[in-house]
Amino acid sequence: MNIALDVMGGDNAPQEVVAGAVLAAREYEIAVSLVGRPDVIARELSKHDVRGLKLPIVPASEVIEMDDKPATAVRAKKDSSMVVACQLVKAGKADAFVTCGNTGGALAAGILHVGRMKGIQRPALITPFPTQTGFCLLLDVGANVDSRPEHLQQFAVMGSIYSKRIMGVTSPTVRILSNGEEQGKGSQLVLEATALLEKTPGITFLGNIEGRDIVNDVADVVVTDGFTGNVLIKTAEGVGKLIRTILVEELTASPISSLGGLLAKSALRRLSRRIDDSEFGGAVLLGLSNLVVVAHGRSNANAVRHAIRVAKQSIDYRIVDEIQAGVQVIPKAAAELQSQAA
Amino acid sequence: MNIALDVMGGDNAPQEVVAGAVLAAREYEIAVSLVGRPDVIARELSKHDVRGLKLPIVPASEVIEMDDKPATAVRAKKDSSMVVACQLVKAGKADAFVTCGNTGGALAAGILHVGRMKGIQRPALITPFPTQTGFCLLLDVGANVDSRPEHLQQFAVMGSIYSKRIMGVTSPTVRILSNGEEQGKGSQLVLEATALLEKTPGITFLGNIEGRDIVNDVADVVVTDGFTGNVLIKTAEGVGKLIRTILVEELTASPISSLGGLLAKSALRRLSRRIDDSEFGGAVLLGLSNLVVVAHGRSNANAVRHAIRVAKQSIDYRIVDEIQAGVQVIPKAAAELQSQAA
Repeated sequence: MNIALDVMGGDNAPQEVVAGAVLAAREYEIAVSLVGRPDVIARELSKHDVRGLKLPIVPASEVIEMDDKPATAVRAKKDSSMVVACQLVKAGKADAFVTCGNTGGALAAGILHVGRMKGIQRPALITPFPTQTGFCLLLDVGANVDSRPEHLQQFAVMGSIYSKRIMGVTSPTVRILSNGEEQGKGSQLVLEATALLEKTPGITFLGNIEGRDIVNDVADVVVTDGFTGNVLIKTAEGVGKLIRTILVEELTASPISSLGGLLAKSALRRLSRRIDDSEFGGAVLLGLSNLVVVAHGRSNANAVRHAIRVAKQSIDYRIVDEIQAGVQVIPKAAAELQSQAA
Repeated sequence: MNIALDVMGGDNAPQEVVAGAVLAAREYEIAVSLVGRPDVIARELSKHDVRGLKLPIVPASEVIEMDDKPATAVRAKKDSSMVVACQLVKAGKADAFVTCGNTGGALAAGILHVGRMKGIQRPALITPFPTQTGFCLLLDVGANVDSRPEHLQQFAVMGSIYSKRIMGVTSPTVRILSNGEEQGKGSQLVLEATALLEKTPGITFLGNIEGRDIVNDVADVVVTDGFTGNVLIKTAEGVGKLIRTILVEELTASPISSLGGLLAKSALRRLSRRIDDSEFGGAVLLGLSNLVVVAHGRSNANAVRHAIRVAKQSIDYRIVDEIQAGVQVIPKAAAELQSQAA
């Protein structure tokens, strides 16, 4: 097994990315191809004991920056670490692509250079979302903008398989994000997708879920269109940051509350850890012919290791084959539905 | 001036609702019609000194409950406090309708019984959303499900007028919620609405805003369709609750952090206050021939007073007339746009 890692992307690249690759290569006993500027990579590798580890260097002279326009950059920077890494996967020289760089760039490079899975109409970005007792999976959070009901149906199948294999949920429940929990409430897209989801084999569909209930552990997988999903995760990020900012402001506003904040420091740290999803490897683009893992831009070595673990697990469990098999039974069900309606 | 108040709706009805009416009638020197069961209202009024206050009782025998299906309940419960209050407004006997009850019921009663404003295609629900330094206004947060570009354009005009008059912003800036901040990013709806917003007279349109930036004080008014807006505010509510729950769990996990939490108590209380929007009167349904104010279900007397204040201000500033005038100049601009394109 070989994972193609974009060494140049992310806030803490290349140091933490290479450090994460070293951790992963040692712990999981796999090869991690380090894609980027050879001099930079060699310098970082010299800081680690890499004897016996499989960490080949794959040269790429360019970098897709965080503020680059994704589609344009992927086309213009043909020798960027992202594009070269995706081409490794495409050529069968690597089994998955992992990056902490520009999410849009990773999506564009993946879709353009890794290539789509047969039968998948739209790849989707899936991400863990914090809940009271753990995490649920949310997709699509931004691979697509406008979605059709059939897309959401495929998202549900892909999300269920991912939940089973990567999150270890035996029988994952699926809900569709809507503006009300009652059946019959929702946009035209939600209503039409619901009709399809109710007839989709291999998933446990439980109907609508509201934004406020995602955190309440009532679904393992929540499907939505990429526009709404993207707004949702970014709003959650904004609200989390706002609360943190105001909390710090208020805690430092008086000596007594400062002391309180100091004494409660470990509790506040545990709070951050429980709503931080970096141990889950970040977001994953499902529906391509191989997996693309988009870890957080702020990933440290440990988060990079987890992102590589997710890629490894997906290969071990043959997620791509499972998804392929899962979506192949959908058209049949849709045809049945039509003949029933006729 | 007379405000029709639904005394039966809300978690703290009738006690806090009547208490809020008493506060408002005294402070703003206006009449507040108390709509609901006369015996219940009389009993609550007997707890207050109401000499000289204008607090007429308007009988209504039924109540639209929090778990009633809105559209059905509004049709079935013709003598409910919501329907009777809206009919008071329709008949010109009251100038606005205020409730802390079932939001869907309030929308349905308002749309059905208060009636639409001429020229408005869809009424919209507007609500304050917490930011680093205060609040911005978000609409539509759920009066509609599927929206068209022209609807979002009218939302922008209504939101700007409301921001000026009720929030006191001299020259409110407007942005459209999207899945990226760059121009050209967005769903079909966002792209088409953007083209209209750029040509809309009387508003200061600044382009896209992402979910994570709403809290960063970069817009006074954020427009979106009612589906996305509803998901957004409910997600924010869920995330806020999740953080609060985990914070309490972690603070009470050890004696030291418990002590810390105790010392930081006033800071935590200030945090809650800064992200609580009850002083802004809750959500307001704009675009009807009179204002409908939907305060939080959990409103206490003070929040009810603020909701009545918002209704009073909207009447003082002739918000309805201003909105009517504001939307009347839109079709002209749209026609100009078409002739330019031709």
